[in-house]
Amino acid sequence: MTVEPLLPGSMIGILGGGQLGKMLAQAAAKLGFRACVLSPEPDSPAFAVSASRICAAYDDAEALGRLAAEAAVVTFEFENVSAKALAVLEGATRVAPPRIALETTQNRLAEKRFVQGLGLPTAPYAAVENAAALRGAVHRLGGLEAGGDFFLKRAAEGYDGKGQMRLTRPGDLARGEAWLGASSAVLEGAVDFEIELSALAVRGADGAMAFYDAPHNVHREGVLRESIVPAPIAEAVRRDAEAYARRIAEALDYVGVIAVEMFLVAAPGGATRLIVNEIAPRVHNSGHWTIEACVVSQFENHIRAIAGWPLGATARHADARMVNLLGDEADRALDLIGENPGRSLHLYGKTEPRPGRKMGHIVELTPLQKP
Amino acid sequence: MTVEPLLPGSMIGILGGGQLGKMLAQAAAKLGFRACVLSPEPDSPAFAVSASRICAAYDDAEALGRLAAEAAVVTFEFENVSAKALAVLEGATRVAPPRIALETTQNRLAEKRFVQGLGLPTAPYAAVENAAALRGAVHRLGGLEAGGDFFLKRAAEGYDGKGQMRLTRPGDLARGEAWLGASSAVLEGAVDFEIELSALAVRGADGAMAFYDAPHNVHREGVLRESIVPAPIAEAVRRDAEAYARRIAEALDYVGVIAVEMFLVAAPGGATRLIVNEIAPRVHNSGHWTIEACVVSQFENHIRAIAGWPLGATARHADARMVNLLGDEADRALDLIGENPGRSLHLYGKTEPRPGRKMGHIVELTPLQKP
Repeated sequence: MTVEPLLPGSMIGILGGGQLGKMLAQAAAKLGFRACVLSPEPDSPAFAVSASRICAAYDDAEALGRLAAEAAVVTFEFENVSAKALAVLEGATRVAPPRIALETTQNRLAEKRFVQGLGLPTAPYAAVENAAALRGAVHRLGGLEAGGDFFLKRAAEGYDGKGQMRLTRPGDLARGEAWLGASSAVLEGAVDFEIELSALAVRGADGAMAFYDAPHNVHREGVLRESIVPAPIAEAVRRDAEAYARRIAEALDYVGVIAVEMFLVAAPGGATRLIVNEIAPRVHNSGHWTIEACVVSQFENHIRAIAGWPLGATARHADARMVNLLGDEADRALDLIGENPGRSLHLYGKTEPRPGRKMGHIVELTPLQKP
Repeated sequence: MTVEPLLPGSMIGILGGGQLGKMLAQAAAKLGFRACVLSPEPDSPAFAVSASRICAAYDDAEALGRLAAEAAVVTFEFENVSAKALAVLEGATRVAPPRIALETTQNRLAEKRFVQGLGLPTAPYAAVENAAALRGAVHRLGGLEAGGDFFLKRAAEGYDGKGQMRLTRPGDLARGEAWLGASSAVLEGAVDFEIELSALAVRGADGAMAFYDAPHNVHREGVLRESIVPAPIAEAVRRDAEAYARRIAEALDYVGVIAVEMFLVAAPGGATRLIVNEIAPRVHNSGHWTIEACVVSQFENHIRAIAGWPLGATARHADARMVNLLGDEADRALDLIGENPGRSLHLYGKTEPRPGRKMGHIVELTPLQKP
């Protein structure tokens, strides 16, 4: 795709008003763009930092039309954008990342097939059309009798550990059938990983790519708790992570920041290898540390890419650790920065600290450890 | 001053909507505060990143009352806040930095007397009540016959080289008298400095202080062009710069970020010493590099201070160079980042690139050179 670089002052449309939308809007403003945010919630964090605000449902065609009319390009803080919304937006303005990236990643089955089609390693999986097909799928992947361990994930929803259940005993089958009902799903063999990490890449409108250092991610109950750079991985693994992200981004003719979540697993001979778990066609929680540890953050590079501007450097000038503040953990924010003046605090401005809700995060830098 | 820490979500009022107001509003939003900006210009850069906007003149009592009613604390991006505006604001909410800091620095004569009263070195100067007093003042400072070189600066206005004229020959006297008229002024001996630098300090509501590394500042035609850290100064000079800034901030019972512009001049025996030039009771152009080179920028530390929050670390993790983009220099912004992906670009979102107007800036980081 060739894109005429947007003029400073142009309006950038952002679908979604959470913390990712907020940090995208702030990055856009840094570069002299204006941001127009569409979000259904009046107290959306991104509204407080954007030039223009549209408070409407994500499927409100009239509101989407207004966003498209205002914006020189529209982007997203999440991948579950409906086909209908995409059609309205694409009819009136440029959209980045491209539709195919959203369509591929908002359905777990399409995503698995896409990744496998590129020749990249995935966990063993089987498609499950609905509850009636579950028993056969479990059987095909080895059954539940002899230590089988599976995740059953609905194809069309789910993030942060939602929309999935675990099957470990024969008795779980009936529970899985009841839970699934008429929905389609992916049945996935649980992976005995050493660590989780994510490749964070940005691809410009001209096809140029740059990579942030892949963080080591720690999840609890399906929710990201910490991201740490550098990850404890060999140079060959780091190169693989980048190569996999490159193959995915190029196959999608992607524009913007893309995150590819991966597992590091033991390989024969004491080595390790990567398995692709999930693709996020957007800026990613595991890349928040790039604001403090890089001259150009993931948010700014996403904006630069979709604006047709030159990409910025992705090199780290420090080691970093990012810790999410979930639910009422954010109540301790002042203590956390009082204890250590070197901590960078982000509070998203959400009013309701529901349990597990991402309310903010902390970044700590330490001097770069040269290899 | 003891201040109850503001709760996240509190509204921070900002008088002034330029680039300093914009970066203050963005720092406030990072910490989960909302910003309310009052500025007379509809296309003010800070409006595009603030939760609430009041477009009104700085002396509009009704508008100032609304700002004070919305905000838990009001701060400023400039020091020329009228006594009337301050009275309205102070009548309804907390104001930081304190009134005395604004009153002292918005009048050059009051500022000089204050600095001298603290026992800090200034350039030789004389008060000039009006045109009629100019001749005598010039005479007292050594006259214009034998290589005299003076700046005549109106007491009550002027920034970026405005509101002043230079006197170097006897014939300039009549010109100076005509220019001054009934205004009062400071007549100041021109200083033959080696370099200019600024002390950048932040003082918390509890009196705690932290100092950024003093940048080396390069002005052209009275306007800041570049700020570079570290400055080429001896450790003793660095300590003096901090000590002077501390004495000034403590004397004002200051809260927030304060910048003290200084000259480095030759001293007997080949040494150098500092002369205090000017105090800016606010975040400062020469501290923009703190966004990229420090975990907590001058903007965030100003917000933390006025919110009664703990101050953040001011240490640099890189050497830095900041270059202002004036007038149509900003037209080259895309080339500048295309040539060097390591450059961080800020465009303020101003629509009219008047000659000499600050439109944006570039920051380049280089690895920390340990002494």
